[in-house]
Amino acid sequence: MDLKEYLSNVENLVDKTLFRFLGDAPGDLNKASAHLLLAGGKRLRPALVMLAAGAIDKKAPDRIFPAALALEMTHTFTLVHDDIMDKDSLRRGVPTVHTIWDEATAILAGDVLYARAFDLICKATAEPAAQVRAVSMLANACAEICQGQSDDMSFEKRDDVSRGEYLEMVRKKTGALYAAAAGIGAILAGASPPQAEALYNLGMTTGIGFQIQDDLIDLLSSRDGSGKDRASDLRAGKQTLIAIVAREKGIDLAPYRKDLTDDEIDAIITELQDAGVIDEVKKIAHDLVVNAKKGLSVIPESEEKRLINEMVDFFVTRGF
Amino acid sequence: MDLKEYLSNVENLVDKTLFRFLGDAPGDLNKASAHLLLAGGKRLRPALVMLAAGAIDKKAPDRIFPAALALEMTHTFTLVHDDIMDKDSLRRGVPTVHTIWDEATAILAGDVLYARAFDLICKATAEPAAQVRAVSMLANACAEICQGQSDDMSFEKRDDVSRGEYLEMVRKKTGALYAAAAGIGAILAGASPPQAEALYNLGMTTGIGFQIQDDLIDLLSSRDGSGKDRASDLRAGKQTLIAIVAREKGIDLAPYRKDLTDDEIDAIITELQDAGVIDEVKKIAHDLVVNAKKGLSVIPESEEKRLINEMVDFFVTRGF
Repeated sequence: MDLKEYLSNVENLVDKTLFRFLGDAPGDLNKASAHLLLAGGKRLRPALVMLAAGAIDKKAPDRIFPAALALEMTHTFTLVHDDIMDKDSLRRGVPTVHTIWDEATAILAGDVLYARAFDLICKATAEPAAQVRAVSMLANACAEICQGQSDDMSFEKRDDVSRGEYLEMVRKKTGALYAAAAGIGAILAGASPPQAEALYNLGMTTGIGFQIQDDLIDLLSSRDGSGKDRASDLRAGKQTLIAIVAREKGIDLAPYRKDLTDDEIDAIITELQDAGVIDEVKKIAHDLVVNAKKGLSVIPESEEKRLINEMVDFFVTRGF
Repeated sequence: MDLKEYLSNVENLVDKTLFRFLGDAPGDLNKASAHLLLAGGKRLRPALVMLAAGAIDKKAPDRIFPAALALEMTHTFTLVHDDIMDKDSLRRGVPTVHTIWDEATAILAGDVLYARAFDLICKATAEPAAQVRAVSMLANACAEICQGQSDDMSFEKRDDVSRGEYLEMVRKKTGALYAAAAGIGAILAGASPPQAEALYNLGMTTGIGFQIQDDLIDLLSSRDGSGKDRASDLRAGKQTLIAIVAREKGIDLAPYRKDLTDDEIDAIITELQDAGVIDEVKKIAHDLVVNAKKGLSVIPESEEKRLINEMVDFFVTRGF
């Protein structure tokens, strides 16, 4: 099986299961909780839970599937709350929860998903001691994500964020949950501590790479390519790794914090490419992934391990 | 030891522990998370965790103390989020989190406490299988609290809420967490399923009684008695059990949804007393508590059981 087929299978399974359980839940709060969860998504965190579990024990993915859903619930709860904070009105092509209902309902909808995530870890079939470790790992990831979002918001008021500060923020905001996805899958499948640590670290570094690639996609994608507005980070003056590396090379992107035409955006991209900014940012993501893969030497060879390696490459090369 | 002394000991222990761990945490988000937690509170849910654990195994309270803190974290997270939704500016005599910082920080501060709660359950010393049951119980309580808060807010737009609807809302909004407090204490201490169920049910019914008493205190307390504004529920037109029982007896409180003088409030109280509304509401709370205590026959006699019975009485007789 190739990665594309594997990811598509997980996506279908997650979609089907979520729809079966949440598709016709009664009441405003249940509908608000289910809204973004049922709006699609690539389901990459559940896929990483399943692959990490399968790399430890081929038969584990089926029995720990609720934990894969738990990671998607967690991811979705953070999106619902982030959308309130960032006042975003569109996500995954549908209006955000607080736009359709209101902020109070969106806060509660996120809180309900948060609760369901922890309950789902308990519903996985695994050693109880492993479940406790998984719960603790998920809880710590959630606390880190909150700190990452807080740091990200505070960066909006600054124009001097360093490369180290940015990477630390992304480690928390994006890396922590991918780390937990791989770590929880491994732990519930019965991984030894070094194996669980290796997969946790792989999730962490590739999660960071994933976010860097997201920033590149935001800048480089053509109109309608990513489903988002083009170069939204640039127009919002976000302190992405691109902006930071550009500043290190003497290019100040702050003046572009405004509405930009497609021609202006194209000109900025060309300037950044000519200065080697894009290549350097790509190299940072690439190096993270190379290191992540090296750490997997404690995991025996298997189809799942091969797919994990493919997935890690996909994270920093994907165009959407 | 009498109940007052016991509660005071738990309050001191909780305060001291929270202050030690959170008193000087750096950064805005940590300070915002710790703010309401360190502002005091009666710490009744931790006390119930400890008493329920002690009623099962005298030595258990020490080793499961982190779970007592977990219940206080959970309670506080719901208050921080509720204060945003209800736009309240004061709580426990201090400005609310979203008032000092902003709504985004308050959402995240609540989310951090939410995460810490689940991590603390994992830090209790108990059988792993018991910890998993405790995590699941806490998660389900959290989901119920959200539904209760959602129902409570939806009641604000109605003037025909029935007694059954009100009690179901309170069961979720307040009962569920007291039920989880007693249930989790019992489970982590090694209770048998019937014992855990008895303590869970006791927490549920007395939690409902606690909320009914809260409504009575809001109406009946003299100025500055509860630290809140007097008769705030009446002035806000809240569908409390008092308003519902009054309506059943032909007294419509809706016209009092406005600013009221102390003399007007006194007159309304007299009218409600003369019509037997206050006595009937008190009887509902009293009956809940009598039933709750009956269910404890599966718990062996002990000082802890005696204190639980005292606590349950205190819940529906307290004046603050």
